[in-house]
Parts: sequence; structure tokens; C-alpha cells
Amino acid sequence: MNFTIAPLDETLRPLIQAKIDAKTKPLGALGQLESLALQMCLVQQRLDPQINAPHLVVFAGDHGAAAQPGISAYPQSVTAQMVANFLQGGAAINGFCDEAGLSLKVVDAGVKAPLPAHPNLINFKIAEGTEDYCQQAAMSSAQRQLAFARADSLVAQLAEAGCNLIALGEMGIGNTASSALIAQVLTGIALEDLVGPGTGLDAQGVANKTEQLRAALQHHALSSPSGETALQVFGGFEIAMLAGACLGAASRGMLVLVDGFIATAAVLAAVKINSNALAYCVFCHTSSEPGHRLLLDHLQVKGLLDLGLRLGEGSGAALAFPLVKAAARFINSMASFESAGVSRAI
Amino acid sequence: MNFTIAPLDETLRPLIQAKIDAKTKPLGALGQLESLALQMCLVQQRLDPQINAPHLVVFAGDHGAAAQPGISAYPQSVTAQMVANFLQGGAAINGFCDEAGLSLKVVDAGVKAPLPAHPNLINFKIAEGTEDYCQQAAMSSAQRQLAFARADSLVAQLAEAGCNLIALGEMGIGNTASSALIAQVLTGIALEDLVGPGTGLDAQGVANKTEQLRAALQHHALSSPSGETALQVFGGFEIAMLAGACLGAASRGMLVLVDGFIATAAVLAAVKINSNALAYCVFCHTSSEPGHRLLLDHLQVKGLLDLGLRLGEGSGAALAFPLVKAAARFINSMASFESAGVSRAI
Repeated sequence: MNFTIAPLDETLRPLIQAKIDAKTKPLGALGQLESLALQMCLVQQRLDPQINAPHLVVFAGDHGAAAQPGISAYPQSVTAQMVANFLQGGAAINGFCDEAGLSLKVVDAGVKAPLPAHPNLINFKIAEGTEDYCQQAAMSSAQRQLAFARADSLVAQLAEAGCNLIALGEMGIGNTASSALIAQVLTGIALEDLVGPGTGLDAQGVANKTEQLRAALQHHALSSPSGETALQVFGGFEIAMLAGACLGAASRGMLVLVDGFIATAAVLAAVKINSNALAYCVFCHTSSEPGHRLLLDHLQVKGLLDLGLRLGEGSGAALAFPLVKAAARFINSMASFESAGVSRAI
Repeated sequence: MNFTIAPLDETLRPLIQAKIDAKTKPLGALGQLESLALQMCLVQQRLDPQINAPHLVVFAGDHGAAAQPGISAYPQSVTAQMVANFLQGGAAINGFCDEAGLSLKVVDAGVKAPLPAHPNLINFKIAEGTEDYCQQAAMSSAQRQLAFARADSLVAQLAEAGCNLIALGEMGIGNTASSALIAQVLTGIALEDLVGPGTGLDAQGVANKTEQLRAALQHHALSSPSGETALQVFGGFEIAMLAGACLGAASRGMLVLVDGFIATAAVLAAVKINSNALAYCVFCHTSSEPGHRLLLDHLQVKGLLDLGLRLGEGSGAALAFPLVKAAARFINSMASFESAGVSRAI
């Protein structure tokens, strides 16, 4: 499917900036919150940005390669166990969404286990896990297209219900490995700089993981692949759906809150497919997974939070969401120098 | 007055850490949020930290030295105008407190203008602004003591009403200059590294401000002053009250949320007076006022947010408060590996 994403119309920028600069505060004194407010206004094409029915979606999937020892510190079965934990309300993301006022949806993109039906679980399972990218492409082109189409249908449904902000999270044992590979072929950054401890490998574990992934890279020997190809060869179904959801949300003029390393790798693929998507994305934090900072630098963006988080699930996006609300709040409700009768700088 | 502040009882630390480590997440994956949860538990001496009736208090005061050109980019009258803005609900801090669920109190610590009575304004005016520290001590010992006593009485009143968390903010034209001087004599950091643009001086303005402040330092020639003396000689009444409120809150086992450069300079004086106070403080952000990072390093602490904020008013504390709630939330409500039936690392 093709996503039509409008480049941001910059016509309003001077008016928005003037509105920000007239607020009762020194020029620029709200730092990154000011650029965030400006971005929200440009995305929504209005001077008073609104947040309606905000949702956080966690896409979950398993990775064929994660059955191999050394790809993750945790057994593959944890993906399904954590999905159950999300549905029972016991995970970090449950509490963080509840605190922040985000509605949580969980999507089975391709978990390697039958999952029981649950009102908060969307069954979009493409297959019971991807193929092992050490041997073959993780998924077919048809599967990647299906992942895009399903993610887009979910975004369409949310948009129809009034949602104009979607936060993207994920769960999938082995998906920092998958993300490192996708990021490597799309950016050219050295593999060893993109491979990190994930859920908790030690230095030797990271070295082993790097060598396994280097072999996978060499096996496929991709040369300047498209975003679609990178997702197909190395992706998880959850990562493909994250990319599809990003493109679908941007095509509908929604704000996209991006979580950590894996979500950013998915957005990297989305931006490779349609570079207009980037302007709709808010990068919520810088993970302690070492490759994340490099991806943010590559995209020339800066995360809102830098708290040493490395949990995934969309946790960094949920934790940053109050800042997004605060950005909308100040531009909508603060007094101006004129309205408050406050003197300007001498 | 003397503040009796208990050093944190560390007995519970292993139990708290074990509770954090049993949560369904990789070890340490919530980064700074985990150390924040640990601190809250130690301050409250319980495994399930609670936030009750949280308040943000903005102390406002004027500075004799700010009547001189070059100390601030804004005229002194802005202090009183901004207090009126707080009371009318038009300032950044109003919206941020409302979003975060913080009750806002505004204190006239020593504004150089009569302020109309208002239900949300506490009249603790010590005098109509301090004396000019370029000529003499900004306040007398009696005035500094009165500032401490009044701040402590406010904290006592909040604590009696059930409040166990207080966020500290300020307003006062010229108070980055005052804070730079207090910080210089208490830390020995070079004056030129502590003087910054404040509300918006340009490079020449910062250079001029630095020379004015160097003359004030030389005039008083303090040698290893106490926290009380530093506050008296260079302080604003609002800064003295911030220090008193910090000490009063710590003496009652309350959590203290510290905003930016000025609040941190006040806490520096408080910690010089009683070093046990530091363990009760949460440093909410790193300001773009360049000296702030140096003060945080000196105290060996790290701010939660780093968003290029430089507004004051307690804005950084209000913006970080959702993270404090999230820290309490995860330690109180997340499932453990055992309770959720999730496998641990291999």
C-alpha cells in the first residue's frame, strides 16, 4: 500500500512563533517545550493544538532468530508472558498509561504462542514468529504488506473515533537485535555501534550477539535496501507494524510519539519509505541502549527524556506524554505580555 | 531556628531494591525512575511510597541590586506583575501545576510593591525588596531568621494538612545574579562560570553582569561563609525562604522537588546548614542557565529533565512531577515475575 503524507505546511510558522514569543516568559525560556508546541501546531495546522483520545499501542511479535542462544538475555516465551501481563494490567506500561491518560491497546503482530481472546488484545497475528534471518528473510513481501495494512487499519479505526495522537511501543524478545540490523542497513552506522545489551547481556554477550548479527548481515549482503526490504529481511512483525502505524498516522495528520531504540528503528524504515513522515514524529526519550542515540543523531532529532530507560513497551513515550500535554497547555492557556500587563525586556 | 533533620535510615534499602528488582522488567531498565522510587521509599520509610496533597510554592521577592542596570534583562517591576499573573492563572506555572495535579501557593517574600490581598497569596513580606549587595548586606540576620521561620511555618501548615511533597519555585527579577553570588561563596566555583544570561542578557550583558557581581564579591570578601551568611549577604528574601522551606520540609520527612538554578542555589545553602537535607531533595531538571549544571555536579546529583528550560517559577519541578508519580506508580502497582508468571533472564 502507498501512504500519501503531506509535507508540513509551514505557512503558519511565523504566527505560531509570534504567539509563543508573546507569552509571559523570557524568549525561548521553555526550551524544547517550545519547539514541541510549534511542531504540534504545524502538524495540526492550527494555533491551538488539541490532544484528542490519545492512544498508546504496543505491538508484540516473536523473532525466529531469538530461538538461538545469545540473541537475548531472556527466553523467547517471555514475549507471550509479557503480553499476558499487559492484559492483566501488571506491566510498567499499564501504570504509566493510566497515570498519563493514554488508552492502551495491545496488538498480537506475530507472537509465537496462541494468545487467549481479550477485549484489549487485537489479533493481527501474521504468523507464529518470523523466520530466522540468519538463514533466510524474516518475512515475505506479502507478510510485510499485510503488517502495513493491518497497522494502517488500526490507525484508521482510532482516527475515526477521534484520536489524533498515537504513541508507539513494542514487545518482542530479540527485537533489539532485529532493530540493530535494520538500522545498520538503512544508515550505514557500524554494526558494533548499534548492537547493545538489550534486556541485559553482559559485555561478552554483546560481543557474541554482534558476531551472530554480522554473519546475518553478510549472509544477506544487502546494498542500499529500501525501508520495505530492510523490514522484510530483518524485521519482526511488530517492527513492520510500528513502521506501518507511523506511516498511517502521519498520512492522517496525527502526531506520532516514538518510544526507544526499536520504535526508532521502525520509524527510520518508515522515513526511508516516505521522508515526510518524520515531521509528524515526537521522539520521546533517549534510551540507554547505546545505538539509540546514534539513530536519533542520524535523524537529526533529540529525545525529550534522557533517564537511562531501556524497557520498551512504549514506556518512554508514556512517560514523556505529560510533556506533550504541557506543551499544548502553555501555548493554549498562558497569558501574553499584553493581556497580563507584564513589561517586556528592556 | 534550628532544623533537626534525620539522616535517611538505610535499613530498608535491600528490601526496597529487592522489590524493584522483582518487577517484570529487565534489571535496572527503568533507569533514573528506579533510583527515584528507592529515594521516595527511604524518605518515607516504607515500601509503598505515597504522594499526598502535593504542593508547589512560588516564593517571590525583589533585589536591591536589580535596580541597577545590567543585572537583569527585565525591569524590577516585572516581579510584582508576574505575581499578579500567577494569581490570575496566566503564567506557565499555573497550567503546569494544573496539568500535573499540584496545588499552587504564591508567597510574597519581599516584593517591592504593595500586593492586593488574594486567597492564593500568602503575605510573608519581610521588606519591600532587599538592600543592594553592591553596597551592604542584602538583609540582616534577623530578616534571614524571619524568612526561615515564615517558610517553616508554611511548611508546617501544609504538613499538618497532610502534604508530604513540596515543590519549590521562585520569581524575582535579578535572582540569577543573587544565586550566582551565593553559589560562588559556598562552592568556590569561578564566578564567570556561574553568571549566565538569566532572563536573556546577551554576551556583552553577561560580561557586564559578571563584572558588577565580581565587585560585590570583592566588597564583602567573605571567607568560607556559612549558608546563613551567604543568604544574608547576597540573598533575596525568596531565596532565603526557599532554603528555609527545604530545611523545614526535610525536618518533617517530606520529599522536596527542586526546580532550577535559583532553587538549587537555595538548596545549596540549606545543605551547607544541614547536610542531611540533601537526601530529601529531588532535582527536577538541568536548566540552560549555565551555572546550574555545575551546582548539580557539585551536589553530586542529576536532574530528571534536560529540556533547555530557564523560566523558573517552579516550572521544571511541575514538569517533572509526573515522573515522580510514575516512580511511585511502578513500585506500587507493577507485577513481579512470580505474580505474573513471567520467566526471568536465562
